[in-house]
Amino acid sequence: MSLGLGLFAEDLQRLGVPVVHLDWRPPATASPALVAALDRLEARRDTIELANAEAFARLVNGEPVLVDCRPAWEALDLPQRTVLHAGPPIAWPRMCEPMRAAILCAVRYEGWAANDDAAAELVRAGQVRLEPCHHWKAVGPMTGLITSSMPVFVVENRAHGNRAHVTINEGLGKVLRFGANDASVIARLSWLAQEAGPLLGAALRASGGIALRPLMAQALGMGDEMHQRNVAASALLARALMPHVARAADRHHAVARLAEFIAGNDQFFLNVAMAAGKALADPAAGVPESTLVTVMARNGTDFGIRVSALGERWFTAPVNTPVGLYFPGFSAEDANPDMGDSAIVETIGLGGGAMAASPAVARFVGAGGMREAMAATSEIQEICFAEHPHFRIPTLDERGAPAGIDVRRVVEIGVTPLINTGIAGRKAGTGQIGAGVVRAPLACFEQAVLALADAT
Amino acid sequence: MSLGLGLFAEDLQRLGVPVVHLDWRPPATASPALVAALDRLEARRDTIELANAEAFARLVNGEPVLVDCRPAWEALDLPQRTVLHAGPPIAWPRMCEPMRAAILCAVRYEGWAANDDAAAELVRAGQVRLEPCHHWKAVGPMTGLITSSMPVFVVENRAHGNRAHVTINEGLGKVLRFGANDASVIARLSWLAQEAGPLLGAALRASGGIALRPLMAQALGMGDEMHQRNVAASALLARALMPHVARAADRHHAVARLAEFIAGNDQFFLNVAMAAGKALADPAAGVPESTLVTVMARNGTDFGIRVSALGERWFTAPVNTPVGLYFPGFSAEDANPDMGDSAIVETIGLGGGAMAASPAVARFVGAGGMREAMAATSEIQEICFAEHPHFRIPTLDERGAPAGIDVRRVVEIGVTPLINTGIAGRKAGTGQIGAGVVRAPLACFEQAVLALADAT
Repeated sequence: MSLGLGLFAEDLQRLGVPVVHLDWRPPATASPALVAALDRLEARRDTIELANAEAFARLVNGEPVLVDCRPAWEALDLPQRTVLHAGPPIAWPRMCEPMRAAILCAVRYEGWAANDDAAAELVRAGQVRLEPCHHWKAVGPMTGLITSSMPVFVVENRAHGNRAHVTINEGLGKVLRFGANDASVIARLSWLAQEAGPLLGAALRASGGIALRPLMAQALGMGDEMHQRNVAASALLARALMPHVARAADRHHAVARLAEFIAGNDQFFLNVAMAAGKALADPAAGVPESTLVTVMARNGTDFGIRVSALGERWFTAPVNTPVGLYFPGFSAEDANPDMGDSAIVETIGLGGGAMAASPAVARFVGAGGMREAMAATSEIQEICFAEHPHFRIPTLDERGAPAGIDVRRVVEIGVTPLINTGIAGRKAGTGQIGAGVVRAPLACFEQAVLALADAT
Repeated sequence: MSLGLGLFAEDLQRLGVPVVHLDWRPPATASPALVAALDRLEARRDTIELANAEAFARLVNGEPVLVDCRPAWEALDLPQRTVLHAGPPIAWPRMCEPMRAAILCAVRYEGWAANDDAAAELVRAGQVRLEPCHHWKAVGPMTGLITSSMPVFVVENRAHGNRAHVTINEGLGKVLRFGANDASVIARLSWLAQEAGPLLGAALRASGGIALRPLMAQALGMGDEMHQRNVAASALLARALMPHVARAADRHHAVARLAEFIAGNDQFFLNVAMAAGKALADPAAGVPESTLVTVMARNGTDFGIRVSALGERWFTAPVNTPVGLYFPGFSAEDANPDMGDSAIVETIGLGGGAMAASPAVARFVGAGGMREAMAATSEIQEICFAEHPHFRIPTLDERGAPAGIDVRRVVEIGVTPLINTGIAGRKAGTGQIGAGVVRAPLACFEQAVLALADAT
């Protein structure tokens, strides 16, 4: 496991980065049950390593292609009166404020209720169903809402034939994904559904599909870790899209509006990266005995993971609250706990674990800078199966980003994945208040280890 | 001079990069006349340092804005039967083959002659004038040709009011700038003049101008050194341009063709970077006593520099031939000596001296990689006045790229600027055969030092 780990550490030392060779014994806090579970897994080590090699190969060698943009009712057969949300399953009463505000706003946007009170009544009565995006071959950032009329990007993994879906990134300011809920939010959602989505769909269908793996690999070499920072990927995608958009359009003003919208949003690609992540990770699920993580997702209340050998089962724990930099007028006290399916980006080897590619993002971590970025990647390498063969980091002389999070390693050394993320205000309607980093909670990895040990 | 040099070297050592503290005595090869000249300049040291601080401030604090694209006859008042070329002045008999081939092709493109023989006759008879781009507030890559009907980008330095001009980058394959000269070259030039140029011009005029300094600073943080590698800057510019292009166009197929052309050319921004370089460097010229370089340019035969205190005077020496990586079927033997005004990019602190920002480009230098990239920037720092306040490098924790090449330092330590460049085939009509790096010849810096010493 963690092939090439020693070499990686040596390289970092050569570059002057302090490397901590972690102690491999279980942390002192581990319970006797956990120690026993790890021992049982150790006895099946050879089988597990083979299984992980298979899951890793599926995870990293997929070929995600952006092929379409269609309303969710068409692309997903998503029925009316269903709202998909980020993270593991969660019932209405346990949802955080921004998630609730966004759901009521989405119900109004769809015309299922005229105001928030009526919308809340429908939800409480079970007349609007709430389900995780991940249960519908989809992912969503932050609150992650998807309803039937919203256009979704369609990413096809051509190596495996599966598809994944995500909404169009709404841009900055008052946006549904951060729990904003006023008229401007609905106006933008309407424009996305009526003009931008159909134009993007026509352009993508005419293009024959835009290959995302090479685009993402290139963007990683341009300082994007593709969670906190997507400026290169967004610009590369805009450049690739625009000829098809212009050709597909019959009204050049529509082209201009779409081009302007994309040009104004450095995170436009985040949603596409998420769908690519889902398309890549889904085929890695269901490999018997594999201990690699295939989903990490948060709903603002719980953090949930799935592990390859255990298929669609969720392991959840209370989610942490991100720390980072806040917009003027906001502070840590205003922050909502961590939220969104965007940690699928970390699941495939980008985001927090690829910080070495993106020193600009490391300013969210303590002092920030090149050394901290290198150290973050070095640490995540310790809990990963191997280096990504396609997503490579120029500052590490084209070594691959660490990929394939192994729940055994997480529990053994007590290091959990580092996630780069946006921060929503905890009060409904506030929207985004900053950006930062957050740790996955150890407890869900511990539960997964216990379940894996039992699943002989 | 070289403010902060020690600190920079310490930082590199901290990052594990080998740093050679160069010996500050004149190289053993220096002539008694050169040693005497350096001594005379040393006696005026305080005056020179003040002058260099002024020239440096002008060089780095300009505000280049891409404002227009118009035919050269409009933008430059360029008359008929005049061909502008790259580098210092050079007469027809001393020109290299690709430069000659391109000139004859340009004469055919303009319709001044029906074939190469007739075109050569006009040139030899002096009925077509040959002048450097730099004498016309313009720059051109490789052969660098500009004739009256070619559209040129207009970059205005809003801090100083001056303008600089450059042709639209032709893209890859058979292109005039590398000395290709067949019918496809002329067809592309015609499309640029008849459709792309007017559309870009209308879009830029409607945009109010696209600020280039922040765009270039951002691209530097995305792995572009903006000579060999312009993918980030090109994508950022495309993204900024397209809304204006779509709005300006009355035919969406024209938008599609232009968008496709831009999307297919990772070096699209190079020409814009060159015009920005010229716009930034021109105001730094003419500062009495300043020993900083304001122009570096090559015509395939000679390498020429200008120095601030000495205004428009050229100091030339035989140009070196770049070494690097070659396209299949070509080798070092096929390479033309170094060519083009593109070294204006190195003159303003980007390109070879900013290699630390662009480890991907360092593969052209020996083994390549992060250490070599760091070492290249470290070396150029030794001949530069200070660090650029706006063009900063993430891998160096946002330290500025070295800028303001001082001819005294070049001669004192015998290190000449490192230039990242394309490589043209030496035979007419071949076009590009590879890309690599080349050193400026020491002799032109030595001549400048002698002239500066005399110019009391």
